[in-house]
Amino acid sequence: MVKQFKDERIDFISGTDLKMIQSPSVFAFSIDAILLGQFVRVPIQKGHILDLCTGNGVIPLFLSTRTKALITGVDIQKELIEFANRNRDLNGRENQVTFIESDLNELPLSIKNRKYDVVVCNPPYFEANQAAEKNLNKHLALARHEITCTLEDVIRVCSGQVKYKGKVAIVHRPERMADIFTEMRKYQLEPKRMQLIHPKKDKAANMVLIEAVKGGQPALEVIPPLVILDEVGNYTDEFKEVYIG
Amino acid sequence: MVKQFKDERIDFISGTDLKMIQSPSVFAFSIDAILLGQFVRVPIQKGHILDLCTGNGVIPLFLSTRTKALITGVDIQKELIEFANRNRDLNGRENQVTFIESDLNELPLSIKNRKYDVVVCNPPYFEANQAAEKNLNKHLALARHEITCTLEDVIRVCSGQVKYKGKVAIVHRPERMADIFTEMRKYQLEPKRMQLIHPKKDKAANMVLIEAVKGGQPALEVIPPLVILDEVGNYTDEFKEVYIG
Repeated sequence: MVKQFKDERIDFISGTDLKMIQSPSVFAFSIDAILLGQFVRVPIQKGHILDLCTGNGVIPLFLSTRTKALITGVDIQKELIEFANRNRDLNGRENQVTFIESDLNELPLSIKNRKYDVVVCNPPYFEANQAAEKNLNKHLALARHEITCTLEDVIRVCSGQVKYKGKVAIVHRPERMADIFTEMRKYQLEPKRMQLIHPKKDKAANMVLIEAVKGGQPALEVIPPLVILDEVGNYTDEFKEVYIG
Repeated sequence: MVKQFKDERIDFISGTDLKMIQSPSVFAFSIDAILLGQFVRVPIQKGHILDLCTGNGVIPLFLSTRTKALITGVDIQKELIEFANRNRDLNGRENQVTFIESDLNELPLSIKNRKYDVVVCNPPYFEANQAAEKNLNKHLALARHEITCTLEDVIRVCSGQVKYKGKVAIVHRPERMADIFTEMRKYQLEPKRMQLIHPKKDKAANMVLIEAVKGGQPALEVIPPLVILDEVGNYTDEFKEVYIG
C-alpha cells in the first residue's frame, strides 16, 4: 500500500499540463528544478538521460515535455520514489520515464554499466553539518543537506555516468561555485555554459545553473542572467517567459 | 629623453579629473581597467597596493582617487612605464604612486620582500599561441597575450605578494573562469566576490571581475551584473553611474 501524507496535494508544473502529487512536509519541487530542466540542452528525438537526486520526479517529467529520450530518475529516499512513480503514472509517462531507489554512491549495475547522453542533478545545497541546526525532518534534511552524498560524490557520479562529450547540468548555490568548478575539472567535466539567477535586479545571485561537457575544451559562456522579481515584487517578463512559457 | 609617439594624445579618465597620456599604437587603457579599479575594495586611509601589468598606469592613478594608500605599478614594458611615469607626474601623484619596470616573474626584492594589502591585475587575456595570428605590434601583443606571463604566473605572483587575508582582484574574460577558479584555489586565493559585465542585456558576458581573499573561507557572492549598452546602443544608467560617476 502506498504511503499517504495528510498534507498531500496536486500541483501543476507551470507552462506544462503536468500534474505533480507532492507533500510539503516530505518534499515539494522548487523553481530550481524547473529552471534546470529548462536550461539543460537535451537531444530531442532519442537518447537516454539520467537525473540524480530526482526527488518526486519533477525533472524527468518536465524533460519529457522537451524530448523523446528515455529518462531515468534516481533518489535514495523510498518515499520520494513512491511519489515519483505515482507522478509518472498520473501523467502517463510509463513508457518514457523510470524511477529507481538507490544511493548514488551505490548505483545498481543497470545504471552503472550504461553511459548517458545527459546527466542532470539538483543536489542537496548545504553541507551536512548545517542540517542539525535547522531541525528539519528526515526527508527534507536528506534532500537539502549533503548527508548521503557530498558535492564531490555528485560530480564524480555525474562524470562517471555521462558519455564522452555528453553533457552534465547542475543547479546549485553561487556560494559553492569555486567548489563546483574545481570538482568538475577534477573529474574531466569542463564548464561550458552558465546562468546566474538573481531574486531581484539589485540582489546578489541565489542560484547558478552550470552545464559542463565531459572532456570538453575550456571556454565558458555566461549567458544573460535571469531576474525573478521586479521592483514591486511581481514576476519579471523574462522569468515568466522561461518559467511559465 | 622621453620617447614620443606620433599618435600620442591626452585622454581623461571618466568621472575623475585625471588626465592620461596615451598612444593607441602602443597601449590605451580600456573600460576593463576602470571597472576593476571601481570594483576592488581598498583600504581608504593607509596601506599599500600593488598593480601588476599596470600598462600606462591607469589603475594606480584611478585608485589614487579612492584611497590614500601607497600604490606601486609594475609592467614589463619599458615604454609603458615611461608613459605611466609621465601620467603620474602630469597628475601630481609623485608622493603616492610608484612605477617599476619588471617582469612579474622576476620582481625586484623591493617588491618581493613586501606583502601588500591588495594586489590587482588586468592581465593579458589571450593565450600566447593566438598572438601571431592577430599580427599585433610588440607592445599590444605583450599587453594582450600571455607571452611573458601566463594566467598561472599572474595568480601565483598575486598570491605571493598579498598579505594573509588580503585581497586580490583581477579582470578577465568569462571564458577563462574555470581556469581562474582552479588556479586561485591552487594558490590559496578564495574567490569571494564576482561581477559579470554584459555588453547588452541579451548578450553573453564579455568580462568578469573577481575578488579573492588569501586564505579566505569558501563562499562566493555574485553581485548584480553590469550591462553596458541599452537596446539602442546608449550607455545604460547603471553603467554611467559606475563608469562616469
